[in-house]
Amino acid sequence: MSTVARIELTPVAFADPPLLNVSGVHEPFALRTIVQMWTDDGLVGLGETYASDDHLARLQAVADVLPGLDVFDLNGLRRRVSTVLAPGGIPNHQDPVDVVMSPFEVALLDAQGKQLGRPVVDLLGGAVRDEVSFSAYLFYKWAGHPGRPGQEPDSWAEALDPDGIMRQARTMIEQYGFTAIKLKGGVFPPEQEAEAVRALAAAFPEHKLRIDPNCAWTVDTSIRLARELSGILEYLEDPTPGIDGMAEVAQHTEIPLATNMCVVAFAHLKPAVLADAVQVVLSDHHYWGGLRRSQLLGGICGMFGLGLSMHSNSHLGISLAAMTHLAAATPNLTYACDTHYPWKTEDVIKPGVLSFESGSVRVPSGPGLGVELDDDALGELHEQYLRCGIRKRDDTTYMRTFHPAFTPNTARW
Amino acid sequence: MSTVARIELTPVAFADPPLLNVSGVHEPFALRTIVQMWTDDGLVGLGETYASDDHLARLQAVADVLPGLDVFDLNGLRRRVSTVLAPGGIPNHQDPVDVVMSPFEVALLDAQGKQLGRPVVDLLGGAVRDEVSFSAYLFYKWAGHPGRPGQEPDSWAEALDPDGIMRQARTMIEQYGFTAIKLKGGVFPPEQEAEAVRALAAAFPEHKLRIDPNCAWTVDTSIRLARELSGILEYLEDPTPGIDGMAEVAQHTEIPLATNMCVVAFAHLKPAVLADAVQVVLSDHHYWGGLRRSQLLGGICGMFGLGLSMHSNSHLGISLAAMTHLAAATPNLTYACDTHYPWKTEDVIKPGVLSFESGSVRVPSGPGLGVELDDDALGELHEQYLRCGIRKRDDTTYMRTFHPAFTPNTARW
Repeated sequence: MSTVARIELTPVAFADPPLLNVSGVHEPFALRTIVQMWTDDGLVGLGETYASDDHLARLQAVADVLPGLDVFDLNGLRRRVSTVLAPGGIPNHQDPVDVVMSPFEVALLDAQGKQLGRPVVDLLGGAVRDEVSFSAYLFYKWAGHPGRPGQEPDSWAEALDPDGIMRQARTMIEQYGFTAIKLKGGVFPPEQEAEAVRALAAAFPEHKLRIDPNCAWTVDTSIRLARELSGILEYLEDPTPGIDGMAEVAQHTEIPLATNMCVVAFAHLKPAVLADAVQVVLSDHHYWGGLRRSQLLGGICGMFGLGLSMHSNSHLGISLAAMTHLAAATPNLTYACDTHYPWKTEDVIKPGVLSFESGSVRVPSGPGLGVELDDDALGELHEQYLRCGIRKRDDTTYMRTFHPAFTPNTARW
Repeated sequence: MSTVARIELTPVAFADPPLLNVSGVHEPFALRTIVQMWTDDGLVGLGETYASDDHLARLQAVADVLPGLDVFDLNGLRRRVSTVLAPGGIPNHQDPVDVVMSPFEVALLDAQGKQLGRPVVDLLGGAVRDEVSFSAYLFYKWAGHPGRPGQEPDSWAEALDPDGIMRQARTMIEQYGFTAIKLKGGVFPPEQEAEAVRALAAAFPEHKLRIDPNCAWTVDTSIRLARELSGILEYLEDPTPGIDGMAEVAQHTEIPLATNMCVVAFAHLKPAVLADAVQVVLSDHHYWGGLRRSQLLGGICGMFGLGLSMHSNSHLGISLAAMTHLAAATPNLTYACDTHYPWKTEDVIKPGVLSFESGSVRVPSGPGLGVELDDDALGELHEQYLRCGIRKRDDTTYMRTFHPAFTPNTARW
């Protein structure tokens, strides 16, 4: 038996471009917590998750009670997390236990794999594909973070209109080979974003296309835009808030509706299925309880006729590895997954394992997640965390430093 | 990497008492197929399943294509089974791929566990309980198989009325310590079976009580009987056929309706949930695709507010071990599981690992399933299979050798 001996949580900050979204604009640094879990037989399992102060406190409370846990005891992990967590405090209606247990579950699976000399994908039932397809994740953005020498402009140009989006798409597809495109919308009036989608469709007729207005649209606007974009979208992601709103839109369009906003916990699946509100669920192991429970989500989607794709926040290589193992072992995850990975310039893992070819990442073949922590890089990004002063993602407040009157665009149009 | 080297399928027959049910009466022997799966590194994984000629042919077709399969590649198993199986041919609307893959999946998990030196329960996420509770499975029965010297009477007495059922309950509970009781009904008119239930409730006021008429009742009768038995049943199992019929009954009773007849494959879950037809699903890894997919079923039930129990056909020790590992790793399997185990007098495994104390079986702690095949016993039960001439379970035809006019009681009352 191999048990958890010690856990270290390291908050890190990594440079992030000024990506625009419904809530405002990405701050100069994105935060992540890196989990290192040592076992009593000298292995280390890795995990990665959010890093707000609140979340860090919850993670630490859990880390304190995990020593002694058998590395195979995922049910025991869940039990301990449930016992430690006070109710409430998790944003966006996610399940607190699922959110908090996730990085530890990934670290346990990493440790299991290292003990067995097998990649995590084997522990998830075996690879149904050797490489996992990701999408080009396009953002409206500024040229750089205003007033930050060295970060303005960044290596990506400004993109504030259809032309800018087109240039960004060309660059990203040239560099990474993506065969699917997702445009993060909810930034400009819908007609303008629809124009960008049509331009993309014309320029990349073979690519699958998605737009994600992040609930910036009303039900009526969503229905109208769905009509306008019919035939060129693979799916329409979260046009409008709530299961009821999505259900109403769904009744009026043939385009599959996808979500990572109205179905973000297992408790939301039954009402969503009963209302026929969404046709595609975007999984995300960071809030669906880790890799095994994301597979449960995948199984549920399969049984209830829902498509399965994958959501992404800003993340580093440990998460990309975990996402890749999960997607490789999930037969019905047939959509290209979302990832913010191309937007980052710094990482905590040693390079060489994860790279994009033809838009896909090859499943790491080494034991566990197959990625190795770079202690120096971890130290530097932790220093950057300490220096940067950001302790919670807050795109709205950051936007207001430039546009004081800004309010989030939710259901604005 | 450890791969499948060779598979041997051995059909066996074991003595079975004349248990009465909706279809007729159990024949003198029940059939099972024992799967032995050798790996290239010298391990053997065990599985157990049905043994009709049709099923054996399907199993052999799959066994022929499994050599070379990585023992961790459960997705690969499913793919190979899907490729080999011709459509159709599986009774009762079960999913052919799930039914046929099951014993091989169990054998792979057994081999994995043996390789890792860990019990199967660890591979399923870890034990949430050290022992698994089973129910006393009562049957109306004859004293013995008519005209078979040495088998008439058997060690269990005749039970053809409430008094007989009461005696059987006392014997079984005395011997095994069960704290839940299930009466297999569908044999006599409902009022008579209800009388037996009421007698059991009076004699065992602390025991959980269930009756399973196996769809012998019409919707109206089911509603009437549910009213009569209100307050004394833990759940009412399959009173009437079909999702629609069950849904109608469910609307008229507070007693949870359970099923292993109208929801027997993943495809049935959505219609059952939409119709609110059942409140408890009886899992059975033999037709739900093995242990991991039974956990998926468990997860689905949890998320959709359905209770989870476990169904049993006549089975031997390999299956009891698999059922116990599965139940131990499934948090929401909180009902006592059904088992025919007390009714059998012969087995293929070496004794000592599986026993009932206070109605529960302790989870085997050895590697894999934790049970070992007894080669001599396997040989003897295979000889018995060859001799007995039974090649497919057929309770109706056997009943007609004594009562030529018998027809199954489905929806009779």
